[in-house]
Amino acid sequence: MYVSFEQLKERFSGVLLKLGFNKARAELCARIFAENSRDGVYSHGVNRFPVFVQYVKEGFIKIDAEPEKTGQNGVIEYWDGHLAPGMYTATLAMQQAINLSKKNGIGSVSVKNTNHWMRGGTYGWQAAEAGCIGICASNTIGNMPPWGGKEPRLGNNPLVISIPRKQGHIVLDMAVSQFSYGKLQEYELKNEKLPVAGGYDAEGQLTTNAGEIRASKRILPIGFWKGSGLSLVLDILVAALSGGRSVAEITADGKEFGLSQFFLCIHSKDMKAAISDKIIEYTKSSARVNESEQILYPGEKVLATRMKNEKQGIPVNEDIWQEILNL
Amino acid sequence: MYVSFEQLKERFSGVLLKLGFNKARAELCARIFAENSRDGVYSHGVNRFPVFVQYVKEGFIKIDAEPEKTGQNGVIEYWDGHLAPGMYTATLAMQQAINLSKKNGIGSVSVKNTNHWMRGGTYGWQAAEAGCIGICASNTIGNMPPWGGKEPRLGNNPLVISIPRKQGHIVLDMAVSQFSYGKLQEYELKNEKLPVAGGYDAEGQLTTNAGEIRASKRILPIGFWKGSGLSLVLDILVAALSGGRSVAEITADGKEFGLSQFFLCIHSKDMKAAISDKIIEYTKSSARVNESEQILYPGEKVLATRMKNEKQGIPVNEDIWQEILNL
Repeated sequence: MYVSFEQLKERFSGVLLKLGFNKARAELCARIFAENSRDGVYSHGVNRFPVFVQYVKEGFIKIDAEPEKTGQNGVIEYWDGHLAPGMYTATLAMQQAINLSKKNGIGSVSVKNTNHWMRGGTYGWQAAEAGCIGICASNTIGNMPPWGGKEPRLGNNPLVISIPRKQGHIVLDMAVSQFSYGKLQEYELKNEKLPVAGGYDAEGQLTTNAGEIRASKRILPIGFWKGSGLSLVLDILVAALSGGRSVAEITADGKEFGLSQFFLCIHSKDMKAAISDKIIEYTKSSARVNESEQILYPGEKVLATRMKNEKQGIPVNEDIWQEILNL
Repeated sequence: MYVSFEQLKERFSGVLLKLGFNKARAELCARIFAENSRDGVYSHGVNRFPVFVQYVKEGFIKIDAEPEKTGQNGVIEYWDGHLAPGMYTATLAMQQAINLSKKNGIGSVSVKNTNHWMRGGTYGWQAAEAGCIGICASNTIGNMPPWGGKEPRLGNNPLVISIPRKQGHIVLDMAVSQFSYGKLQEYELKNEKLPVAGGYDAEGQLTTNAGEIRASKRILPIGFWKGSGLSLVLDILVAALSGGRSVAEITADGKEFGLSQFFLCIHSKDMKAAISDKIIEYTKSSARVNESEQILYPGEKVLATRMKNEKQGIPVNEDIWQEILNL
């Protein structure tokens, strides 16, 4: 079934108001959930909404908490999120990084005790819309073994880099695992093979069988040892800088809350737009592997899905929609 | 054969002085070539030195040029490298990013018209030694097809992230291709298979045969589509921000000179060292795939090689050493 953006947002907002969210905060969180769905990131939009509500009910997300600035070192601010809704705090933090960068060229906000920001790309698009290069990262619960190890000790910590561009912002929104557990589940349910190896089976062999990877818990970092190192470095960047919880402590609790995040903006007023366009044009000029499949820049598919879903409505799983109507 | 650090450095310095380098600049470049070798990065140390000399002789590297500050936006400086030796300019740029960050929390230098910095990690270690988180990136000549394409249009643009740490800095120094061409050549010469697929063969199948990948020119980005997107975004970050040349233009010239680079430091005075240590300890606590192979943090292997080479001397290929003695 298809639901319009406005319908989705209104329903989300209604549920959040009933949970006790104030109006502005309900509006902001509902908008982000609806936008994530509109942009095709259903896993962190409509499909995730019931889990978000559950976390609020269980008290992991504090609906009245207000993030607090606890320190500053030049163009860096240090915040304590006090477990407020993650999308609310991330939006404020990125806005402050934007403000600082417009004054100082660069601005950054380092946040501890925050919550899941849902889609990292949200804040990349936010920075780009404001004319800034945005870089942000979060840690997660431990879900990926380090290179050389068999047990999950690293998060698939997302890294976002966005570049403003008139004809469509460039937004790289990348978890450091080859596939998320959500993606593995999708393939398992459809009984389809992964397009490339996504982890190891019980015998320690690389496999495209999503079910076997989910069973072994040995999902693959991008680039094997490289993504493993990148994940560790991102955890240190977000946790040791903010003084917040690392993957180790989040994992010990067994619930993905109290995360650490990092936001940085570079005011791009000196950026040469013609150079960005040239880079995209040159990249697309390569002969294709399959003539029918375009070479895309990061963010291009999101933009295409956005335009399609704005026309046709947002595809929603009926069971999940019913679950949301019952909340 | 083994050569001592001092012997290597002296020989490099002697050659550079003969080429017309002034004393300070010869000393700096010789030190970096010797350190790269001492740290085990022979491909950008002793093995690369003859190519560097060739580039100087051909005029792609201007030995007397001085990088120039051409603009500033708050804590970001814009520099023109004027084709001075890449290691010289990169060292000055990272030093200025360090200085700016010590005053403002964060500092950054964006450089156009510079040259190959050899090992990116050099500048990561430099930032960490100064007590800063260092982030830097460079573009390269086009050597990697974009995801969905068959022809090289992207660089394997290195990304470096370093974190200061008393017991050994954490330094991620990562090209965005799974293997470099240099690494592929090593495996081909030894007639060994790559440990994981590194690209495609002539039939478009993933392969661990380095020779077939070198022939097809289809080397693999880390994480397939993810590394492809990361490479594009890094090219825009270094080129569009500095106003310098992108992979497209470097590739059109067929010689890897006139690169664009980005340096950023975060002064880490507020960083919690105990959290970094905990993250490393937790990562290493995973059961191992092979009991005999340690789980390492980024930079750990470099440090071990450094200590070993400082004791035993630096292993040098006799033919290359003879070539250098003849320069």
